[in-house]
Amino acid sequence: MSKHPTKTQTKHSMQFMVLLFGLLLWFSPAPEGLKPEAWHLFAIFITAIVSVILNALPIFTSSILALSTAVLTDTLSSEEAFSGFSEDFILLIVIAFLIARGVIKSGLGKRVAFIIIKKFGKSSLGLSYSIIAADMFIAPAFPSNTARSGVLFPIVNALANDSDSKVANGTRKKIGSFLMMSSMAGLTLSSSMWLTAMAANPAGVAIANALGTNITYSSWVMAASVPILVLFFLIPWVIYKIYPPQIKHTPQAPLVAEEALKTMGKVSKNEWIMAATFLGMVFLWIVSSEWGINKTAVALLGLGVLMVSNIFTVDDLKQEGGALETLIWFAILYTMSVYLNKFGFMGWIGDYISYGVSGFGWPAVYVSLVLSYVLIHYFFVSQTAQMLALFGVFLQVGISAGVPSEMLALMLLFATNFNALITPQGSSANVIYAGSGYIEPGEIYKVGGIVTLVNTLVFLTLGTAWMMLIL
Amino acid sequence: MSKHPTKTQTKHSMQFMVLLFGLLLWFSPAPEGLKPEAWHLFAIFITAIVSVILNALPIFTSSILALSTAVLTDTLSSEEAFSGFSEDFILLIVIAFLIARGVIKSGLGKRVAFIIIKKFGKSSLGLSYSIIAADMFIAPAFPSNTARSGVLFPIVNALANDSDSKVANGTRKKIGSFLMMSSMAGLTLSSSMWLTAMAANPAGVAIANALGTNITYSSWVMAASVPILVLFFLIPWVIYKIYPPQIKHTPQAPLVAEEALKTMGKVSKNEWIMAATFLGMVFLWIVSSEWGINKTAVALLGLGVLMVSNIFTVDDLKQEGGALETLIWFAILYTMSVYLNKFGFMGWIGDYISYGVSGFGWPAVYVSLVLSYVLIHYFFVSQTAQMLALFGVFLQVGISAGVPSEMLALMLLFATNFNALITPQGSSANVIYAGSGYIEPGEIYKVGGIVTLVNTLVFLTLGTAWMMLIL
Repeated sequence: MSKHPTKTQTKHSMQFMVLLFGLLLWFSPAPEGLKPEAWHLFAIFITAIVSVILNALPIFTSSILALSTAVLTDTLSSEEAFSGFSEDFILLIVIAFLIARGVIKSGLGKRVAFIIIKKFGKSSLGLSYSIIAADMFIAPAFPSNTARSGVLFPIVNALANDSDSKVANGTRKKIGSFLMMSSMAGLTLSSSMWLTAMAANPAGVAIANALGTNITYSSWVMAASVPILVLFFLIPWVIYKIYPPQIKHTPQAPLVAEEALKTMGKVSKNEWIMAATFLGMVFLWIVSSEWGINKTAVALLGLGVLMVSNIFTVDDLKQEGGALETLIWFAILYTMSVYLNKFGFMGWIGDYISYGVSGFGWPAVYVSLVLSYVLIHYFFVSQTAQMLALFGVFLQVGISAGVPSEMLALMLLFATNFNALITPQGSSANVIYAGSGYIEPGEIYKVGGIVTLVNTLVFLTLGTAWMMLIL
Repeated sequence: MSKHPTKTQTKHSMQFMVLLFGLLLWFSPAPEGLKPEAWHLFAIFITAIVSVILNALPIFTSSILALSTAVLTDTLSSEEAFSGFSEDFILLIVIAFLIARGVIKSGLGKRVAFIIIKKFGKSSLGLSYSIIAADMFIAPAFPSNTARSGVLFPIVNALANDSDSKVANGTRKKIGSFLMMSSMAGLTLSSSMWLTAMAANPAGVAIANALGTNITYSSWVMAASVPILVLFFLIPWVIYKIYPPQIKHTPQAPLVAEEALKTMGKVSKNEWIMAATFLGMVFLWIVSSEWGINKTAVALLGLGVLMVSNIFTVDDLKQEGGALETLIWFAILYTMSVYLNKFGFMGWIGDYISYGVSGFGWPAVYVSLVLSYVLIHYFFVSQTAQMLALFGVFLQVGISAGVPSEMLALMLLFATNFNALITPQGSSANVIYAGSGYIEPGEIYKVGGIVTLVNTLVFLTLGTAWMMLIL
């Protein structure tokens, strides 16, 4: 028998420590100014978040245990506890998740990617631009950067392989590593660009709304457009300089793509239907606020069209347990975050920190809030979990300190996305790319750190100026 | 080119007909006394139901299109439309679904199934009797047929699997489909048998009391006993005839089971954890009303325990897209049924019938009330919702027409249970069983329709005679 604890033992003792932490918090007296129910809900919520950060429990397990505890201790009534499940934006995420499968299954995702490479893929840099452009193009209907990386990664991987840049024979840096890093960085931009490009985005908008700050599909796109446009050109170039590919010119890539397109043949009926459904949905989402159309109903209609056309079938749906997983933990953490706010916890923390920053002008508060929010992502595995845990508090603090609320809300939600490359585990997409072996974790800390820095600087300067102009 | 239409063409023309039917209803003027929103919701709801009955669309597709239509036409607000997703009993169904997987994965389901097969497994019919007997036995302490099906379903599922009758490889009809259908039919009987076997029963007794009709625990059991005893023997035999299993005699099954039990060896740690979790959950469900514990929170806790123990994992969950499918269509149909009632459609139908039966003798009124009550369940997803919406109206109508009040009250409350198999969404239990894939929705309309007919005939003839004798 080894004297070192096994992996299971380590996990069990970690779980025990987290439980102890939660019990200690629970039985500590509520701080001055907080109702016991608010304190108890906070104890449950933060214990769930800590158990995820420390990897003691998967986010799903920790969420269902947290909600169960909240109901069984009468901290939340059952009506309160399950209310998140009927939030239309959460259902939107789940439905759009399913639609994204249709994009892949119809073959349209592949075709669009090949067309872009055919046109722009002559150099490594051009290739990286074209990958990010493709990502940007499909992002509005892919409310999951994980799902999107599932579309992009195989293409990037094939590109690397077809350029004779392989992990196995030590040639990963020829071009593969560069393209992978660019695509990961591109995901931070595509997710910031569209309200429907990442699960946390609409959830954040709902939280902002609950705090009295209104964000629409079009105000989001408008605000994001200018900094994202600049970063779209800047980021691949920065990576090209600090993490260069050994091959710079790839004259054969467009040929490979052209060949692949020939093999695919004419645009199939399913691709046409998929494209029409997709464009129709994006159009209706864009005009949804103005025309008073519910976005989730649009997604349901789109999914219905795909199902009637057999592009996505009930059998396909039966494989999508991951969507159920997301629905459940997401609805739970969202609900707890909402009730932390309703019970006065967010306001209380907000007042507390506001007091600390009082005397500072709002610009100083704004900058420190955004920077802290970006840096705290070091500790979070899930972008969405960080947003659910902190966005409401940060927004509340800023509003109390006089920061323009819509600008701050948008900036923090952009940051939820543009900070994703700060660690190898900072986003599921990073995990998928790093898992290929083309990129080593240490390289993400270095290159990803610089990308995050550039993202943050451009958003804080140009992005802020632009928002002050248009909002 | 063949002159005969292809299967796809037939399906498309069927879809077109259903669409036409829906549009005709939608644009017809609302009948006297109905608000346009009630009429429009009815048009959408009945079109969805008809498209499922005619097999023009799967129930999932037809549900999402129906809800989307309801929201996009402003027939339902988005808050109304998605409200069903936060109903705790619907989430209970989904969670119970996942726990059932744990029962199987832990090996416990297998062991219990083998024990039953060893004792009663010489024929398919014998097995179905043993399942229903077990249901009858636990029913008085399970005031929820949903929770009870959460107990029975995993065992029936394990029985099917261990008899090499599986959905995945097309052998569901060997014995699995038959056993599932029998168990669902059995639940209609066990719920009718005991005042405490279903949530709606005591609620109905309270409503009857408020209208001056007294029903006790023992008068209920006495009245139910004779028709239920007959149906207990009749129903499995009827299903055996009209929906036969491919395997009828299984003389070797008890021997195989005994051998399998020997191979399984001693009860494993996972089985103990599963059994303890299960019994704990059942205990908490039984005392839930009295102790004020939320049943869904109990289920979440149970699932959490299974996940912490790695009996059911996040990877297992990713396979359970079927649970998501169920959640979505059930929540949608439930919601539409609730709003049909809230918009006054149900009450309008009730008034209409009262008017129709005035002037007839009480036996004619009695029979037409019971028959209408049974048939109206076509439009109700929730048995409890139907009881709450119509029981009072129907009882009042009958009493005014001179029908013996206690007999009518009991018969309508029995009907609340024995009509449950009339549609796939007629009871949460049906949803759980049909979600397994062993039974197709269309089969429930057919076989369930016949079971409902037999239940109704036996209750109306023998049941009525028996009640006239004893009351």
